[in-house]
Amino acid sequence: MLYTEIPSQRPVTPLLDKIDHPQQLRELEQSQLATVADELRQYILYAAGQSGGHFGANLGVIELTVALHYCFNTPRDRLVWDVGHQSYPHKALTGRRESLTTIRAKDGLAAFPAREESEFDTFGVGHSSTAISAGLGMALARHYQNDPCEVVCIVGDGAMTAGMAFEAMNDAVAHDADLMVVLNDNDMSISCSTGGFARHLAAIWEKGQSVNIDDQGKAFIQDHPEWSYNSRLHASATDAADNLFKAIGFDYFGPFDGHDLDQLVQVFNALKKRKGPRLIHVYTKKGKGFAPAEADPIKYHAISKITASPSNKVTAPKYSDVFGQWLCDEAAQDKRLLAITPAMCEGSGMVQFAKQYPARFFDVAIAEQHAVTLAAGMACEGLKPVVAIYSTFLQRGYDQLIHDVALQNLDVTFGIDRAGLVGEDGPTHAGAYDYAYMRTVPNIVIMAPKDENECRQMLHTAYLYNGPAAVRYPRGNGLGVEIKQELTVLEIGKAELVAEYNPGHDEQISILAFGSRVSTSITAAKNLAEQHDVGVRVINMRYVKPLDEQIIRDFADHTSIFVTVEEHAVMAGAGSAVNEFLAHAQIVKPVLNLGLPDSFMHQATHAQMLQACGLDETGIQKSIEKAWLKLIQHV
Amino acid sequence: MLYTEIPSQRPVTPLLDKIDHPQQLRELEQSQLATVADELRQYILYAAGQSGGHFGANLGVIELTVALHYCFNTPRDRLVWDVGHQSYPHKALTGRRESLTTIRAKDGLAAFPAREESEFDTFGVGHSSTAISAGLGMALARHYQNDPCEVVCIVGDGAMTAGMAFEAMNDAVAHDADLMVVLNDNDMSISCSTGGFARHLAAIWEKGQSVNIDDQGKAFIQDHPEWSYNSRLHASATDAADNLFKAIGFDYFGPFDGHDLDQLVQVFNALKKRKGPRLIHVYTKKGKGFAPAEADPIKYHAISKITASPSNKVTAPKYSDVFGQWLCDEAAQDKRLLAITPAMCEGSGMVQFAKQYPARFFDVAIAEQHAVTLAAGMACEGLKPVVAIYSTFLQRGYDQLIHDVALQNLDVTFGIDRAGLVGEDGPTHAGAYDYAYMRTVPNIVIMAPKDENECRQMLHTAYLYNGPAAVRYPRGNGLGVEIKQELTVLEIGKAELVAEYNPGHDEQISILAFGSRVSTSITAAKNLAEQHDVGVRVINMRYVKPLDEQIIRDFADHTSIFVTVEEHAVMAGAGSAVNEFLAHAQIVKPVLNLGLPDSFMHQATHAQMLQACGLDETGIQKSIEKAWLKLIQHV
Repeated sequence: MLYTEIPSQRPVTPLLDKIDHPQQLRELEQSQLATVADELRQYILYAAGQSGGHFGANLGVIELTVALHYCFNTPRDRLVWDVGHQSYPHKALTGRRESLTTIRAKDGLAAFPAREESEFDTFGVGHSSTAISAGLGMALARHYQNDPCEVVCIVGDGAMTAGMAFEAMNDAVAHDADLMVVLNDNDMSISCSTGGFARHLAAIWEKGQSVNIDDQGKAFIQDHPEWSYNSRLHASATDAADNLFKAIGFDYFGPFDGHDLDQLVQVFNALKKRKGPRLIHVYTKKGKGFAPAEADPIKYHAISKITASPSNKVTAPKYSDVFGQWLCDEAAQDKRLLAITPAMCEGSGMVQFAKQYPARFFDVAIAEQHAVTLAAGMACEGLKPVVAIYSTFLQRGYDQLIHDVALQNLDVTFGIDRAGLVGEDGPTHAGAYDYAYMRTVPNIVIMAPKDENECRQMLHTAYLYNGPAAVRYPRGNGLGVEIKQELTVLEIGKAELVAEYNPGHDEQISILAFGSRVSTSITAAKNLAEQHDVGVRVINMRYVKPLDEQIIRDFADHTSIFVTVEEHAVMAGAGSAVNEFLAHAQIVKPVLNLGLPDSFMHQATHAQMLQACGLDETGIQKSIEKAWLKLIQHV
Repeated sequence: MLYTEIPSQRPVTPLLDKIDHPQQLRELEQSQLATVADELRQYILYAAGQSGGHFGANLGVIELTVALHYCFNTPRDRLVWDVGHQSYPHKALTGRRESLTTIRAKDGLAAFPAREESEFDTFGVGHSSTAISAGLGMALARHYQNDPCEVVCIVGDGAMTAGMAFEAMNDAVAHDADLMVVLNDNDMSISCSTGGFARHLAAIWEKGQSVNIDDQGKAFIQDHPEWSYNSRLHASATDAADNLFKAIGFDYFGPFDGHDLDQLVQVFNALKKRKGPRLIHVYTKKGKGFAPAEADPIKYHAISKITASPSNKVTAPKYSDVFGQWLCDEAAQDKRLLAITPAMCEGSGMVQFAKQYPARFFDVAIAEQHAVTLAAGMACEGLKPVVAIYSTFLQRGYDQLIHDVALQNLDVTFGIDRAGLVGEDGPTHAGAYDYAYMRTVPNIVIMAPKDENECRQMLHTAYLYNGPAAVRYPRGNGLGVEIKQELTVLEIGKAELVAEYNPGHDEQISILAFGSRVSTSITAAKNLAEQHDVGVRVINMRYVKPLDEQIIRDFADHTSIFVTVEEHAVMAGAGSAVNEFLAHAQIVKPVLNLGLPDSFMHQATHAQMLQACGLDETGIQKSIEKAWLKLIQHV
């Protein structure tokens, strides 16, 4: 069935309702599976509408998920979902159907598979391309224990471009491991897939033949049945050599129609009769069964709750959009600017740039290591590359950041998006460690803006700085301040005093605030000064590296306690940099470091998360009050 | 010529002596190149004998290097050497011949290509698999500037297993970039190459045919000439499909004999007539032309100076060997132990383990991302994997450490070798950031031993700890203490007081020392206490995470100044963790943080480097003295 609307009422799903464990699915007749899939699709449409979240990928794997749980003895057999944003049907079939409407909410189901949530979730995910490594680890472990089971890794074609997947395939062959990889080829990651690998997949299809398998597990070649591969990129991909997966040493089967339940069931059952590393190539359609998503899969990668109350009219632009606009404006002024994204054109706000400057836009696929070193190479030739990357994904390019960029002091600008807490996507997408892992590295300038206008000016400053420089900004919208079109360079390493309450007071609290916590700290400071007999000043530190040491020195004599506030782990974070300077300068004063706790923060709204770790206005105020009161008691 | 000895006298090399710039090479007749190569080989044998350092790989690329500089217009054309340990012949032909004997020494030539050293060194390297990314960046940048040149990346087969190389190839095809990759296939990284990719290369050879190219740049197939591929691993590699490089979209040429100068010159010249991504597969022999190295290429990967004065009789074992012995002993007691290395079996001290427990030993090739997540997968199945990895290489598996191990709190033990400064290998191999990038991550236990016995006990402790735990230990030898065979668990988060001088004194300096700096600090403390009227105590902190907060609290009232000492960057390091705790506990005391400076440390001996950054006994003593005197002046 092709649906056209997201239902606001729970659909009637009598067969699905009987499945609280996949064993109940396995007891059905094969002929009933189509009904299960149809009901599941209706239910996913409904549930995703209630919860918001990933969408297209889930609709695309409904038949695949039904066939996998039907053919394999889960949870004893291991299904390892790559990325995991396509695990909603899996969650629905494994006892979590009615909770699916809570996905991504505080205390609800996790947005991705999570080991603590269910024994069916064999591996926690969020970032792409880990499934083959993890699944191989499981397969080797079970083999070693003489307790083998089927391990099936389900990996998208987008995720296959990340080198890690290749490393794992190489190693699976080294060990001749009993491992199945289902290549879920929808010719997309979030954006369209790009590169030689995508072309190769198209070329395989265009040959018009599949490698099939009979019920005795024997392979044979057959002509393609009639179904279409909507290759959006690769119209001319024809002359690629045989098959990359066979080259690397996997047994290859497919391509198959990933929505043909009977075919899938036959193939999966037959494949159990073979050993060693096997790859099953299925073609699926992102958004399958929902007409608007089939037509525009990028838009429907994820959706918002349909029941969401109309949000307070947000007029402030997203930080991503501020980045994107700056990128276009800077590019207009400077021909040396090139922009790089690892498959995050839309998320990073680069759609307009890509359209306006196609020759200067480089989507390198999901390949963070490569993205960073590619920029280094460009900088070697006198150009000025800008890498747009989420904080959490830069973790994948860390060594390259150190050696290829910082060690050579190359002129690369990093626009680090989604820094701090990210709300519903949960801990795998939080950008909680970038200050720590970057500031320990020599030569890098690290900035964090207090608002969207400062973000724009900092990007300009980082860009003009002749060396590696990073601006880290949060997910979501700015504060609604005016954005000055004129680009102004901020002095490197220079903070600003942004608020002072009871300025002449003998006792002063100096709040050194970073990035998103500046405005919050101003409110907290104001309340503190109104409610207590104390002066409070707030400094927008702007730079994590180099720190404005002078401003700290200047205020030191008139500070009773320093407070640092950041949306980053306290451990090794920006406050920690302040501590180091105070120690170095022998400024012996009480310090209160506020930031994220030393634990992974579970999903919730961004506001709920900030509240939980005391980084909202009230939390900051309370923590300072407590420290302050303790201090004056001691004096 | 096949040589059998490393000359201690500079050989006579009349033709080579005339080449101070590759332009002079290019002016020679092609028939003279064999003489150049022979002289160059003799000279490299001599120079490497003088300096020590990488060896086999350099002998293997002599003809290749001569042919490249002969055919390409360097430095305008870009040669990008992957890893760079094979760049000695390149350095010799580009004006640095006579300095080659200083390689790896303080103020001598760098061990790897370095941009600041020569315009011929297009990209600084050290870690593997970056060349295609960097070269692609250069090629795209030059194309964008309408100033194209030939960009040739020289990449070993070992380096090709790292996913980053695959990411870059994928992207080169996406842009149809004018880029040549020379696959220098010697069937080895440092160890023998492993995995599906290595088998594929063997299979390509075993077909008995090469894809050749005529002088008009047109490809044709020919039978192999008679030369042998010493496939040590892949005797049965026969049925792999066509060709992985063609599959990914590269034009493929080869395999060719990488020691046949005429063939190489013909091919390189012909290839300039083609555009797009081209891969040239050459087979070379590691250690070529030096009989002992041809026979044992692993042993001759690197050599020591032949002129080295007999070192002070070192009886203390290397930390790597302590790790290797512990690994065998622990494995004998616990069948759940599996060990993983990313292609560093020898360097990490695992030869004996691999021999004794082949079914429990996993060399995953150069694939750090995969190595970490493979361990996570194994831990999911109840086994206890140990990942042996150099500090500098763990930077490549950082995201996996966070998400796949720490976030899921999986029971993986990390043996982190080469932590701190590493001497002659220089800044690319220093392990200067691991405390910082690890301690910011929740759930991890991080330890550093004061000596080799504590290293063994800490490894045992980390192994028994039910969660992620890391022991970071230095390059080189232990202190010569007795190693207790019995394995003892250390209490998690518990430091020890190891020295106290003038214990009853009113003024006390508390030195909180980490890892390799404990013994040095004890000497410094003793000297301080002898020369000044002050008490000094030294605490072996043992744990960077969790810190022993109690011991700091206990001594706080009797401490005038805290000093932290570590062989790690001060920024975000272990001392920084101490600062955070002091702030948190409102212990307001002067603190002196000693560690590595915020700059990349150039190559020198380990002792020279420690001296340069004030981390030897004298340096530590002086820094403390200075801070102490300043403090008492103020009081």
